[in-house]
Amino acid sequence: MAKLVLIRHGQSQWNLSNQFTGWVDPNLSEKGEEEAKNAGKLIKAKGIEFDQAYTSVLTRAIKTLHFALEYSDQLWVPETKSWRLNERHYGALQGLNKADTADKYGADQVHIWRRSYDVLPPAIPDDSEFSQVNDRRYAMLDPHIVPKCENLKVCLERVMPFWEDHIAPDLLAGKNVIIAAHGNSLRALTKYIEGISDEDIINLEMKTGQPVVYDFDEKLNVVNKEKLS
Amino acid sequence: MAKLVLIRHGQSQWNLSNQFTGWVDPNLSEKGEEEAKNAGKLIKAKGIEFDQAYTSVLTRAIKTLHFALEYSDQLWVPETKSWRLNERHYGALQGLNKADTADKYGADQVHIWRRSYDVLPPAIPDDSEFSQVNDRRYAMLDPHIVPKCENLKVCLERVMPFWEDHIAPDLLAGKNVIIAAHGNSLRALTKYIEGISDEDIINLEMKTGQPVVYDFDEKLNVVNKEKLS
Repeated sequence: MAKLVLIRHGQSQWNLSNQFTGWVDPNLSEKGEEEAKNAGKLIKAKGIEFDQAYTSVLTRAIKTLHFALEYSDQLWVPETKSWRLNERHYGALQGLNKADTADKYGADQVHIWRRSYDVLPPAIPDDSEFSQVNDRRYAMLDPHIVPKCENLKVCLERVMPFWEDHIAPDLLAGKNVIIAAHGNSLRALTKYIEGISDEDIINLEMKTGQPVVYDFDEKLNVVNKEKLS
Repeated sequence: MAKLVLIRHGQSQWNLSNQFTGWVDPNLSEKGEEEAKNAGKLIKAKGIEFDQAYTSVLTRAIKTLHFALEYSDQLWVPETKSWRLNERHYGALQGLNKADTADKYGADQVHIWRRSYDVLPPAIPDDSEFSQVNDRRYAMLDPHIVPKCENLKVCLERVMPFWEDHIAPDLLAGKNVIIAAHGNSLRALTKYIEGISDEDIINLEMKTGQPVVYDFDEKLNVVNKEKLS
């Protein structure tokens, strides 16, 4: 039996300024750092010991992982970062203020972009200051697959190979795994793990900085789920 | 041509309390955190972009790496931790106050233990609170090779396979590499890279938190060395 702990990153500076973030890379806010440290303390109190850590290539998730590991006295645990665990790419909405966008396009349209499973937001132009087309961290990727926008469905499709190639093999080998990532990449994992429908996944909320602990049996069925607080 | 940056971790809490540290795992002091952040700023000012990061499995080096990467805006760089980059194991001296030890064994004896190339300090007993024999982070190692004491020669012998298997191949592939590690594991690397004799290496001092930048040619000869400040 192995444990998997999912943590959504703590509050970021763009959560505070109410901007669509996606693949843009703001840091944690002070509150976000505190949330991440507290996650580590909760993990320590629960006595969970990890064998492997995963995170995205975005600062807010990486720092959340580092605080969670440091405050549970296991910063030495092996860590792998992957773009596959990144937040959903928000397309041309990246960088925009959420309230301004609702004023411009209407609250209903913005709600659809934010919460529909398979409607894509508008694609980001390559020359946008919020595009990742020239970001060095994606230089090793086939340029054709660097997204210009994603919905949750597309996000899930690029997260799942990481489950299949890394997370599931670790759990099957009996390793305890921690993943610090983002609202939508974790929603994608949760949808798969818990078998949630396309309709219901939209309503799943993950609290920032709250560790969610799954226990799996040797066939990767969930035998227990607990939110630490 | 590739670059290699070596950074000795910032001041630790045990540097402050004047204790022999070795494989014991104290955190950075506040000054040590500042040194590590400053290293990141120096790297950023120099415009050095990394492809791969390495560090030990000890908190003070890992945190130094994380601050150096964060403050040079590249926390997303892939990171691998290895016990081979750990500080020299100080044997039974681990945990002892340096001044008390000099009083007890004599300053000359302590000088030999600290600075001779091939004299071993006394081995640490398995039941010492400062032994790593039951430390979970070394559970994957053949128990026969977890050291009970090391001199610089032995330390160098276990660092070099990491150079051969990881660092050198990266540099030969043109990757820029950063290593945050310890006074003696970095002395070992420096001895090899610069071809320093057994006698002279003892006198090499590395300042905490100061990035040392090497440029290599395609045959791994050093063509430039610079200490950032």
